[in-house]
Amino acid sequence: MPVRPAVFDPPFNVVRVSHVELGVRDLGRSRAFYVDCLGLLVSDETADAIYLRGVEERNHHSIVLRRGRASEAQTLGFKLGSEDDLDRAAAWFARRNLPTAFPDVPYQGRTLRTADVFGMPLDLYAQMEQPASMLQKYAAYRGARIQRIDHLNCFTPDVQASYDFYAALGFRLTEYSETDGDDPKLWAVWLQRKGNVHDLAFTNGTGPRLHHVGMWTPGVLDIIHICDVMATCGYLANMERGPGRHGISNAFFLYIRDPDGHRVELFTSDYLTVDPDHAPIRWSLTDPQRQTLWGQPAPRSWFEEGSLFPGVAPRAPVLAAQPIVAR
Amino acid sequence: MPVRPAVFDPPFNVVRVSHVELGVRDLGRSRAFYVDCLGLLVSDETADAIYLRGVEERNHHSIVLRRGRASEAQTLGFKLGSEDDLDRAAAWFARRNLPTAFPDVPYQGRTLRTADVFGMPLDLYAQMEQPASMLQKYAAYRGARIQRIDHLNCFTPDVQASYDFYAALGFRLTEYSETDGDDPKLWAVWLQRKGNVHDLAFTNGTGPRLHHVGMWTPGVLDIIHICDVMATCGYLANMERGPGRHGISNAFFLYIRDPDGHRVELFTSDYLTVDPDHAPIRWSLTDPQRQTLWGQPAPRSWFEEGSLFPGVAPRAPVLAAQPIVAR
Amino acid sequence: MPVRPAVFDPPFNVVRVSHVELGVRDLGRSRAFYVDCLGLLVSDETADAIYLRGVEERNHHSIVLRRGRASEAQTLGFKLGSEDDLDRAAAWFARRNLPTAFPDVPYQGRTLRTADVFGMPLDLYAQMEQPASMLQKYAAYRGARIQRIDHLNCFTPDVQASYDFYAALGFRLTEYSETDGDDPKLWAVWLQRKGNVHDLAFTNGTGPRLHHVGMWTPGVLDIIHICDVMATCGYLANMERGPGRHGISNAFFLYIRDPDGHRVELFTSDYLTVDPDHAPIRWSLTDPQRQTLWGQPAPRSWFEEGSLFPGVAPRAPVLAAQPIVAR
Amino acid sequence: MPVRPAVFDPPFNVVRVSHVELGVRDLGRSRAFYVDCLGLLVSDETADAIYLRGVEERNHHSIVLRRGRASEAQTLGFKLGSEDDLDRAAAWFARRNLPTAFPDVPYQGRTLRTADVFGMPLDLYAQMEQPASMLQKYAAYRGARIQRIDHLNCFTPDVQASYDFYAALGFRLTEYSETDGDDPKLWAVWLQRKGNVHDLAFTNGTGPRLHHVGMWTPGVLDIIHICDVMATCGYLANMERGPGRHGISNAFFLYIRDPDGHRVELFTSDYLTVDPDHAPIRWSLTDPQRQTLWGQPAPRSWFEEGSLFPGVAPRAPVLAAQPIVAR
Repeated sequence: MPVRPAVFDPPFNVVRVSHVELGVRDLGRSRAFYVDCLGLLVSDETADAIYLRGVEERNHHSIVLRRGRASEAQTLGFKLGSEDDLDRAAAWFARRNLPTAFPDVPYQGRTLRTADVFGMPLDLYAQMEQPASMLQKYAAYRGARIQRIDHLNCFTPDVQASYDFYAALGFRLTEYSETDGDDPKLWAVWLQRKGNVHDLAFTNGTGPRLHHVGMWTPGVLDIIHICDVMATCGYLANMERGPGRHGISNAFFLYIRDPDGHRVELFTSDYLTVDPDHAPIRWSLTDPQRQTLWGQPAPRSWFEEGSLFPGVAPRAPVLAAQPIVAR
Repeated sequence: MPVRPAVFDPPFNVVRVSHVELGVRDLGRSRAFYVDCLGLLVSDETADAIYLRGVEERNHHSIVLRRGRASEAQTLGFKLGSEDDLDRAAAWFARRNLPTAFPDVPYQGRTLRTADVFGMPLDLYAQMEQPASMLQKYAAYRGARIQRIDHLNCFTPDVQASYDFYAALGFRLTEYSETDGDDPKLWAVWLQRKGNVHDLAFTNGTGPRLHHVGMWTPGVLDIIHICDVMATCGYLANMERGPGRHGISNAFFLYIRDPDGHRVELFTSDYLTVDPDHAPIRWSLTDPQRQTLWGQPAPRSWFEEGSLFPGVAPRAPVLAAQPIVAR
Repeated sequence: MPVRPAVFDPPFNVVRVSHVELGVRDLGRSRAFYVDCLGLLVSDETADAIYLRGVEERNHHSIVLRRGRASEAQTLGFKLGSEDDLDRAAAWFARRNLPTAFPDVPYQGRTLRTADVFGMPLDLYAQMEQPASMLQKYAAYRGARIQRIDHLNCFTPDVQASYDFYAALGFRLTEYSETDGDDPKLWAVWLQRKGNVHDLAFTNGTGPRLHHVGMWTPGVLDIIHICDVMATCGYLANMERGPGRHGISNAFFLYIRDPDGHRVELFTSDYLTVDPDHAPIRWSLTDPQRQTLWGQPAPRSWFEEGSLFPGVAPRAPVLAAQPIVAR
Repeated sequence: MPVRPAVFDPPFNVVRVSHVELGVRDLGRSRAFYVDCLGLLVSDETADAIYLRGVEERNHHSIVLRRGRASEAQTLGFKLGSEDDLDRAAAWFARRNLPTAFPDVPYQGRTLRTADVFGMPLDLYAQMEQPASMLQKYAAYRGARIQRIDHLNCFTPDVQASYDFYAALGFRLTEYSETDGDDPKLWAVWLQRKGNVHDLAFTNGTGPRLHHVGMWTPGVLDIIHICDVMATCGYLANMERGPGRHGISNAFFLYIRDPDGHRVELFTSDYLTVDPDHAPIRWSLTDPQRQTLWGQPAPRSWFEEGSLFPGVAPRAPVLAAQPIVAR
């Protein structure tokens, strides 16, 4: 029985997914993609990094692009409820012999740099600088008019183990896909803290690797427009999958690849999940509408490619089940 | 200083606004309005009541229409986190000498019927029957394609007192309007539990009365479409205000009146407020963009009319400040 | 040089494409598809036929479903400017030894039943019954909210010959695709009379056959919604291609198949072409953005399948060039 | 009986409305409004003029801003079918003792500068320079994403006389409002050449004056977005009326005023009118849904203010009927 009861009194309070830090090899090329094309706002930039946010976000950054030699996903950021939660988190990770550094991180308050059971790097913090809100500065809306970060999705070699780890921290299951038969195995899980379908998801595959960062747009037409823009200003090959409707999460989506191959999902229109008795939705791994309500299978790259984490060797997945792939 | 710190450890856990029960004089006329025109789904109907929900909702009902002699708002429903929360709530209200009945309520589990400090009737419960989700039964989307209840907005004779009452229960302030000058007075407050701009709002006025129930639609075009429908199928006079963009909440809105005069807001596109350090936005009562970002003032009826609660005599407001009204 | 000058003084005035008559084997199944799902309005129905129109249309019908043993496209209807034009048309076709019958056609005035040079059946008429306009009866908008017929698209064994035939009748070229090299051959043409991208298009292939009837919707979201509806009420397999953006015509599209296999395109957002000096746009047959601006190739069925015309044996195309096909 | 039969063989062929030339007092301020805010494309600019077009337009300009001392509407441009039409037009105007100059006009071919029976200035031409199409350069879409000019609307002191003048030139009536009673008088007319609701409209009032230039946007959300932009970047006071749905034309609209007071309508979603038997729609002057389907009356300024033509003294209207005005 792979699905567990929700944990309502976690050891510390994770409020929501907050940001991701991506290693990129050419900041100029990345800026052209994220700022000039997608329309993200620049909170700050230095010789080595660009800090980006959506039009709604009060937090200083939800995507950090950091110049590096490798196109790795450097860390996944989550916001905690308070400084006390941060101390409780540090103690919790220390008890499990997981890393507990507190590096100085620009624009953030005290930050716990740790990792999960598979070595996936996590930055936990409670305070971040808050530039002026741009939500009602509509003249600044450009490109896909991205409003905020929505979620992170990762490959894991063992979905059940990753689910167990984060469920214990209060992440609540909203949807999942599993194999059929008498002894079903989890193939993917969607886990939430902030009250919509997910803050964090895991998919079976060689991992840990970052599959994608999901960015929320106000509506479907923002995604259609960015398709038109990308297709006609040199980013046609960066459009990997969609647009379409997911069966899982009911969201309208587009998957794109940045100049370093990091995957971004533009995402809108899921649903509210705050009820404690909100029952998770099960999808059979063999149901094609799970992936795309309208039937189109995802391309092979979408199932196989992801961003490595620095110094973390990925392992092959324990589950060999194969989803439906476009030829 | 009218704004208080948020309460993160409330005496019991209110998950979110859940439903409203409206007294109506002619169920057939109300059904034509809510079901045939607005497109709400009928979960159940009897000779005396119709139970309605939006396409996303798993709860059995978010609007209950109950046949009666008066067009009153009979109760405001909130979902609690657990049966234990319900017991804690009963004790809390009892300690304050507020009512604590547990009537049988169809389709709901144990329900605490109580009232706030001004006598505004509240139904608190933790469990409700859950019919099959219609979120992905798109052929059932009609009218405004209403997805879920979003909030309740009430007149109160004393905004500061109502705010103090609900803030102590963990409702968090997201936006507020107040008078200018050295001794500002609260004129309206928006309070949330579920992580967007509001579950419950209060406006200065003769009260307690229900100002409106806010229903969430997937997008702006759903609201534009229902304007076209209402204007051409006999409901032109029921369109009271909008469509437009609120400065407060940034939401796109339309206010309509049902056949008994109960006000419904169709509402979309606000923002996420889950961060514990999310700072409330202040609006001066004299800023016309507070009401409508595009400048149109609201009609006088919008400021003056509301639904009475049964047996609760409304009082004149303590604050005499006057907002901008359309002539 | 396959492109010819536009003819501004044609032998008779074709105002626009008007309707198509489709043979279907089960009127009930067809009604479920066109009326219950797509939302077309029923102008009239008999034991043998259903007459359909979009919400804007004042003409009695733009799609006629006629019960028959075969799923053939029975005739293509065009509206002429006047009864005099009809006489001129009859004389013109007679001079070329093409058929010139005047059968009684329900709801239409005098109707010339003829055929083009490849035997493609044409109904030409000037007057049709006009039921009440439903454009501002918004409560009648259902499904894809189809507003009007936009165009017909046909396979022809010789695009150059079909183009020459219709260009002489005043159909003006707006876009075309052709082979590359020193001696380019036309592969497809888009021809207009009413001032947008097309009333009639021809694609290289075994023909004559009807490729699809194009129906115009008010916006992109109407097409996205009907994708969601079809995918969740039993018509998933009827979704053949899209949604997407055509390079050619710039239109947003979805191709669907009715229960008899007749293909319908839902289509929106092309552009105005009334200027006499409007220069046609050339697309290389090898440009993948011609088909879909966003890059997805069309499935093989889209290139190969079409509706036969009664008693007209299709011929293999003279041009063997192969477009890009999805594997 | 004020409505006349359509003229299908006019003395010369007017293809469509083409452009308007507006006198402005500060090109920088006008550029900020039309280019930076509304997003129109700049085809060319000189010390004295800015030439603008929408993203679809192949013609060099549809709005010309010309620096001057007065904020007048300098001329209304219409495109003719051919150079022969231009000669026929010159002869036609000369026979009526109306002006017939042929000034050099930048970016246009031979241009007949004339005037109608009330002195309203007209530029008629057949050829204009054609810069590269931007329709599929989606990265250039900004602001309201204006696609093309749609129509011009003018005050006239005698709607019947203006209608008679243009009807004789083949302009076809699509909708009209008139007084009630036994001897109805025309209050406004909508006249088309290009096949949608209008190229040119006349409203009863002190005239001749330009009421507004109508610019077509791809969809409703483009108009909603520009409301948000204008309201939050200093143009709140320039928003005069709307957004809303017209009863007449069924279009979704927003009326705005440029820095010189010239009125622009952003306009979308009307309907096709190419059928020769397309019957005009009559609206009673007392029907409030004529103006706004959703019921809001227009402000007084909308009925009273307009742009003068240089050297043409406006006259009071012959018809004293009063429409419904917002207080």
